[in-house]
This record gives sequence, C-alpha cells and structure tokens, in this order.
Amino acid sequence: MTTRSPSGGTHFEREIREQPVVIAGFLNRGLPAVSRVARALRCRDVRYVLVAARGSSDNAARYAQYLFGERMRLPVALAAPSLESLYGARAVPHEIGGLVIGISQSGRSPDIVSVLAAARANGAPTLAITNDVKSPLAVAAEFTIPLLAGLERSVAATKTYTGSLAALASLVTELRDDERDRAALRMVPTALSLALDSAFTNVPLVDYLAPASHVLSVGRGYNYATAMEIALKLRELTSTIAEGFSSADLMHGPIAAITPDTRVILVAAPGPTLSSIQETAAALKRRGAHTITIGGQTTGADLILPDDVPEWLSPIVSVIPGQVLALRWAELREQPIDEPGLLTKITETL
Amino acid sequence: MTTRSPSGGTHFEREIREQPVVIAGFLNRGLPAVSRVARALRCRDVRYVLVAARGSSDNAARYAQYLFGERMRLPVALAAPSLESLYGARAVPHEIGGLVIGISQSGRSPDIVSVLAAARANGAPTLAITNDVKSPLAVAAEFTIPLLAGLERSVAATKTYTGSLAALASLVTELRDDERDRAALRMVPTALSLALDSAFTNVPLVDYLAPASHVLSVGRGYNYATAMEIALKLRELTSTIAEGFSSADLMHGPIAAITPDTRVILVAAPGPTLSSIQETAAALKRRGAHTITIGGQTTGADLILPDDVPEWLSPIVSVIPGQVLALRWAELREQPIDEPGLLTKITETL
Repeated sequence: MTTRSPSGGTHFEREIREQPVVIAGFLNRGLPAVSRVARALRCRDVRYVLVAARGSSDNAARYAQYLFGERMRLPVALAAPSLESLYGARAVPHEIGGLVIGISQSGRSPDIVSVLAAARANGAPTLAITNDVKSPLAVAAEFTIPLLAGLERSVAATKTYTGSLAALASLVTELRDDERDRAALRMVPTALSLALDSAFTNVPLVDYLAPASHVLSVGRGYNYATAMEIALKLRELTSTIAEGFSSADLMHGPIAAITPDTRVILVAAPGPTLSSIQETAAALKRRGAHTITIGGQTTGADLILPDDVPEWLSPIVSVIPGQVLALRWAELREQPIDEPGLLTKITETL
Repeated sequence: MTTRSPSGGTHFEREIREQPVVIAGFLNRGLPAVSRVARALRCRDVRYVLVAARGSSDNAARYAQYLFGERMRLPVALAAPSLESLYGARAVPHEIGGLVIGISQSGRSPDIVSVLAAARANGAPTLAITNDVKSPLAVAAEFTIPLLAGLERSVAATKTYTGSLAALASLVTELRDDERDRAALRMVPTALSLALDSAFTNVPLVDYLAPASHVLSVGRGYNYATAMEIALKLRELTSTIAEGFSSADLMHGPIAAITPDTRVILVAAPGPTLSSIQETAAALKRRGAHTITIGGQTTGADLILPDDVPEWLSPIVSVIPGQVLALRWAELREQPIDEPGLLTKITETL
C-alpha cells in the first residue's frame, strides 16, 4: 500500500526532493555538535575506527572506510554486529584502542546498540550517528551527532542515508580542521539540487532498464558505497534482483554471470577510480551488457553529476540518480513505494 | 572448454575430493610454520587484525573476522585494497598497531601485495597465507604460512579456500595455545570425508534447484563466509545469479526481492546462529521460496554435516555441499567447469 504524502506524491519522492534542504540544514545547525565531538576525540587514543551498522547505514559505513582511510590514514573495521549479539561479551575486545561509531537512522537496531554499549563499558570512545537523539543508540553512546533530517516516513532510506554521509564527512573535516574541505562541504547542497534536476529530467532512461530481470550497480573506491546503496534501493522498491559490486571484485568471479539481459549501472565519479570503471564498462560491453553511467558532465555520462564536487564528497551526490531511478521504475511497475514488500522501518535483527 | 584431469574427471571435481588429504597434510606438515609465526607474534603489539584479500580469499577473510573476534577478542578490519592501489601511500596508516594478513592462493594479486608491502614498511607484523611460497606476496610479508595444497588447476578455488580457513584456524589455535582446540582441529579431515560422501550421495537435490534463475545462499556468524563462498562457486560455475547473505542483512531490504521462483540454500550449522537461520527459513517459506538446508544430522537438513565439528571450525566443512552442488549443476547445464566464463586464475585488479 502506497501512502500518499500531503502534497499528493509519495513520501519516498518527497524525501528524495528534500535532500538539498536537509543537508544544508545539517551543515548549518548540526556543525556545533560535530565540532564538539571532534574536539573531544582529539584528546583520545584513536588508532582505528570500528563502525557498526546494517542496511543503508552499512553502506554509509563503507563510505566511512574510504573517508577515514584516505583522508586520515585511519583503518576502518566494519563490525560484524552478530559477534556481539550472537557470541556475547566474549567478542568484545578488552582494550579497544579505537573509536566505535554506530550508524542507525532509527537508533533502534538492538545489535548496533549492544556493540556501542559494550565498547563504552570498555572505555572506548563511542559515537552515535542517528536521526533520533532520544533513541537507545544515542543513550548508549558517549557522543551523538544528530542527523536533523526530520521524520523519514518512507521505509526505504534516502535523506537519512545522505545525511549520514554528510555527518561522517563533517566529522572528518572537523578532525582535520581544514578550511578548504569546509568550503567544499558547503557546496554540496547546491550540487544535490543540480543532481536532482538532472535525474528527474533524465528518467526516460528507465525504459531502457525496465525490461531487465537482473541489474548490477558497479562502483569503486569512495563510490563502492554508492553502488551498494543504489542496488539496495532498486531491490527494496522494485523487487528486481539488483546487486552492488566493486568493479575490482566483479572481475573476480561474478562477471561470469553477465549476459546480454543484464543491465548495469556504473558510478563513474571523477577521480582515481574513473579509469578502472571505464575499463570495466568496456569489459561489460564486450559481454553485451547494457550499461547506464552516472558521471561528470564532461564524461558523456547518461545521468549527470555536477563536476565541481571532489571525489571524497561525491557519494553524497552520486546516489541521487539511483534513488530517482528506483522511484520511477517502481512507479512503472506499479509497485508500492513507501512500504514495499515485507520491510519495516526498524529491523529487529533476528 | 573443460580440461579433463588425467583420471578423466574435471580438475574441479578432483580438487574437491582432495580436500580431506590436503587439510590433513597441512595439519601435519604445516603446523611447524604456524607455531613459529604464533611464537613471533606473541612478542608484537597486536591490537587488531587487518586482512587484505579478494574473491574466495575475501570469504576466508570473513571467516577470520569471526575467528579472531570471537576466540581472541581481536577486532578484524577487512582492508579495502583499493585504498592502497587507487589512493596510494596517502592511505597507509603511519602507525598501524595491528597484524596485517594477506590471503591469496596465487600470491600474485598486486593490490594485496602492495597492502602488505606498505604495512611492513611501516613496521607492522605482516603475514602471507598463500599456496606459493615464492610468490610476490610471500616475498613482501615478514611471515608466511604456506597452504601446501599442491597446484590448484581449476580456476574456481576449492582446496585453497578450505586450506586458507584451516591455516587461519591453526594460527588462532597456536596463538591461544589450547589443547582442546588442537584436538578439534585434528578431527576436521575425517569430517571433510564424511561431508564429501554425504554431498556426492545427495546430489539428486540439484534437480530441485536447477530450474531456478536466482539463488540465494544464506548463513550467519562464522558461516556467513560459507554462504558467500557457496554463492561465488555457483556463480562462477553455473553463471546463475547467486548471492550470499547474512540472514540478518537479508531482512534489511533484500528479502523484498524473494519470490516463489527463488531458490535458497541455508547454512544451518549447530551453534548460536541456528535459531536465527531457522527463523529466516520460516520467513522465506512464508514468501514461497524453496529452500535447501546444509546442517547437522539431527536437524533434518537436506545436506548433512558431521555433528561433532564445533561451530568455529564448521566453515571448513560446511562449504563442501555447496562446492558439490556447483559442480553437479554445471554438469547438468553442460557448462565448462575448469575454466568458466571469462575468469582467469590470477586477477590483476584493474
């Protein structure tokens, strides 16, 4: 059942369109909290970062892996929350030596909460990135960065996903205390507006994808997260079989399953990953796969990204065409949009 | 083109059947090297483990995440090798504070080699787990554990995958210096023989899977790695769309794409993950999906695992039925088995 929002469209579409305003709001009103956290963390022994998350937030964690790794030389471990919830206290390191971040829009995934609670009990600095400052996750953590995204009504996350990326990017910017990075971050809301306009104008492309029964979404480096998140949106909204891959991993086996019936979305943001994505595109075309490219204006891409967003911030913007594609495709298939399938907004992990 | 092995079968089948002997050989002849590494590591500052790997070895890394996490309380970060190969020295931590492990049967994936070389240059203890002691990976690393698996001719890895798991399990056993664990490890070759007999006897099950165009392989905890590896084998050999999932992540979105045409392989090893897998099985059945279960003799599973293998060692055994399923399915589809699709044995990452 698709719930219509007051303006007549779906919550999902409205929330996609809200993103420039939500991110601008976070960059204005959220920054004091981020600065406080950054100042406090500078006095703590942070040798690596451990991120606990599931679903869309797990894709935000993948972004964090490149963000902390590339910009701060901090290794990022993606926590296996089951270690905590299934194997109990045995799995909690005695001395953690790292910053533990839990990302959850609702702040109510019990296994994420338990990772943070255990880490805090062991003396590790803990940070909740959540849209609900009163959630169990925010209570469990020493520090909280609120997303300030307003209520997200659609089951499939959009503004809280890009909000989580913006929160992570802000944190790293404040930890590095870099004015150029701050200036780049302030350009993101405008870039989001441009990407939205371009994506909503280019939706006829969906006709090209629509006959597919299998879609791959491929990115690399910073935009591996984007590829995974676009696949998740397509899957949640359209019940298509959609998979995200790193272009490097795709060549390590999965490419064997590519046929001319496969449709591929390539995330080709400017930066050092571009040539790898282009080589992958060529290999896919040799196998007869149809591809759609999300990329910069100058690269002849099908869905356009503003050219002036640096690679480390590009995932906040490059997911937009994928969100819009999922929306239009679901409309074409007359799928329920705001409450697709069996999904619920808060996943109580089994 | 399927290359026949001297005995007339495929290399892939012969290498599947070799596994009990290969693992027994490793546990005999490989243990001195493992003990030496363990003794040396006890004098080093190891606060966490960073694993660099791709393809099947990446699934071995997933196993390492539970093994070091649950049995040694050491957090495990899965390296994003692209950080190194794409973003260069910027991405290498100054002070790493952890053990860096590269897993690669060939030892020739350039990005894995470069992660280890950079970590070693920074003073971190580095360990190569490889089937070729003269490979660039073994040369780059301070320590090497050789798999002693003999040449693997099939492009799709089998004995080097279970060999890598056995190497990791041996290392943790020696680091813990635990006699009960040593005894459990020595039982693995016999369990492998039993699992092989059961799997080759039960292959008629493949008729049940064969009409599927989409297969999911689902596990959790230690056997998340198994689910991912079985999906990779099915994909490599049969060009079916096969995906591995953690049962927890499956409920976070992807379950929306499950239809009655989906076939699901459930890895239900005894241990704390069993009830989660059983609940997932019930949810999948409500959606009309057909499932096949790999599990203990007493659980009414379709493909049987010996009951006396503890959960932490079960992934070495529970992948066997999946390897045999991939083999039989590829035979049924008359797919090339030893050199499927576009794959090559050594992936030079783009």
